[in-house]
Amino acid sequence: MDGRVLVPWQENRANAPAALRVDVYDGDSPPPADLSDVGFYVLPYGRRQATDLLSRMPRLRAVQLLTAGYEHVLDVLPPGVALYNGRGLHDASTAEHAVALILAAQRDLPRWADDQRRGLWRPHYTRSLADCRVLIVGYGSIGAAIEDRLLPFETEVVRVARRPRPDEGVHGIADLHALLPEADIVVVVAPHTPETTGLIGTTELALLRDDALVVNVGRGPVLDTGALLAEKGRVRAALDVTDPEPLPADHPLWTAPGVFVTPHVAGGSATFYPRARRFVDEQLRRWAAGEALANPVPLEPAGG
Amino acid sequence: MDGRVLVPWQENRANAPAALRVDVYDGDSPPPADLSDVGFYVLPYGRRQATDLLSRMPRLRAVQLLTAGYEHVLDVLPPGVALYNGRGLHDASTAEHAVALILAAQRDLPRWADDQRRGLWRPHYTRSLADCRVLIVGYGSIGAAIEDRLLPFETEVVRVARRPRPDEGVHGIADLHALLPEADIVVVVAPHTPETTGLIGTTELALLRDDALVVNVGRGPVLDTGALLAEKGRVRAALDVTDPEPLPADHPLWTAPGVFVTPHVAGGSATFYPRARRFVDEQLRRWAAGEALANPVPLEPAGG
Repeated sequence: MDGRVLVPWQENRANAPAALRVDVYDGDSPPPADLSDVGFYVLPYGRRQATDLLSRMPRLRAVQLLTAGYEHVLDVLPPGVALYNGRGLHDASTAEHAVALILAAQRDLPRWADDQRRGLWRPHYTRSLADCRVLIVGYGSIGAAIEDRLLPFETEVVRVARRPRPDEGVHGIADLHALLPEADIVVVVAPHTPETTGLIGTTELALLRDDALVVNVGRGPVLDTGALLAEKGRVRAALDVTDPEPLPADHPLWTAPGVFVTPHVAGGSATFYPRARRFVDEQLRRWAAGEALANPVPLEPAGG
Repeated sequence: MDGRVLVPWQENRANAPAALRVDVYDGDSPPPADLSDVGFYVLPYGRRQATDLLSRMPRLRAVQLLTAGYEHVLDVLPPGVALYNGRGLHDASTAEHAVALILAAQRDLPRWADDQRRGLWRPHYTRSLADCRVLIVGYGSIGAAIEDRLLPFETEVVRVARRPRPDEGVHGIADLHALLPEADIVVVVAPHTPETTGLIGTTELALLRDDALVVNVGRGPVLDTGALLAEKGRVRAALDVTDPEPLPADHPLWTAPGVFVTPHVAGGSATFYPRARRFVDEQLRRWAAGEALANPVPLEPAGG
């Protein structure tokens, strides 16, 4: 815990253990002139240039990111410096948006918004979320957060992940084709890897019931855009991520029947900052106490 | 349990106790020619003309409605016939739509729908439901169903009903003004009575924080339309019921800033029919067993 700590928010300095020397760098204001004694650097969120400071921190021992992704710092991280990421900080926001997309699709919210714009009062019976069987593909911490929010809606949740975890009731991906025909809603939260590219494609969509709903809050390429378009509305979709992304103005997904698109905003809501600040407070407490920090990123040893 | 039973769905006949004589009348096909021995009549849902048959049922002892409201049958109900209503059958649907409206407003779904129509990919940070304090005004069975769905979103729920019920943590309406300034979201599910007309008016809206959200899934006149319009977007609203209703095409609510309108569709979703059919099955079981039926409507004795 020797060395200075650089944090993104004044609140973190105010809440820090008294033994720590803490400065604030928010990524916008100028950084402290002398960074030579910084031992722990919490990078400000969404400020890519914040990594420029790393080269001026010879005594750096630990870097904390507020994103789950960390690929962008691997090339500039000095050897021997430990890396911690922000996984979990966006779970509440993403899970909330996933349920918002499901409800929007089931309760026809885009239709009502359009009728409002036209001053039309045209009620009709809608689908519901209640009684639906929801398949969560890529069941991890975000999937569990989605499940927590779905169950009180009188739904049934089926969990699928890359590897089966029978003790937790999680199916392996090998069961996907057997599970799709019984699903009313499929929520895709799988990360994008070579194995998951096109995971939901022509074959998988064909296995779904008429009028089933596919929700993607993971990564765009996990759902095959062309295969979805070829369904011509037989299967519906609510997509926060797309392939390509951003969608160009003339892309057919914008006008595809039964498709609702939001522009990759699931993780970006007011939920984030309070959770991120509390997380940094807790990391500073651990740092001051000499405890292991949460969320270590496993790094390959140089030359290993 | 003597006398024939008339039910709206074939499933009810199939599931009925063997001792019962059951016929189906769905409100569309012609009714059985002879109704003189009908003892229990379950009125088909949404078919007002179904009450015309009551006058042809001299041995009628009980009438089951599938709506919560029952005022429309009081004038035609023969003396001495017991009345049962459908309260609770729409709870899941209404609660689901209430949460859909909240998420739509917090996560900007009408905005994304409009951007989709225009082919625009314009992400921005949104509000969230997480961390919000939600006041439920008119806390009963629907309010409890809304609460069940809200809590996993990391919210705090505050309950308000006409009369305080301290053992259940329910505030009385006398506390409303003290509670409004601390609320992020107010969900109105109160019934429409002389006391609740304009319950949320100029004074109450003025007590709300800037950018607070009012959701109405109860009855339109409980929220004062003019008072809401006078807020000019300082307080937001998501309304499934309005005053007047239906909204005429040129009504200013359609275009009021921060107002999202759905056309009284909260109760009308796919949740209803399975729940209504199960409820009728259970009433038939009770009827056959000679047990008291659920959901009796207290009736004034004639001339009493």
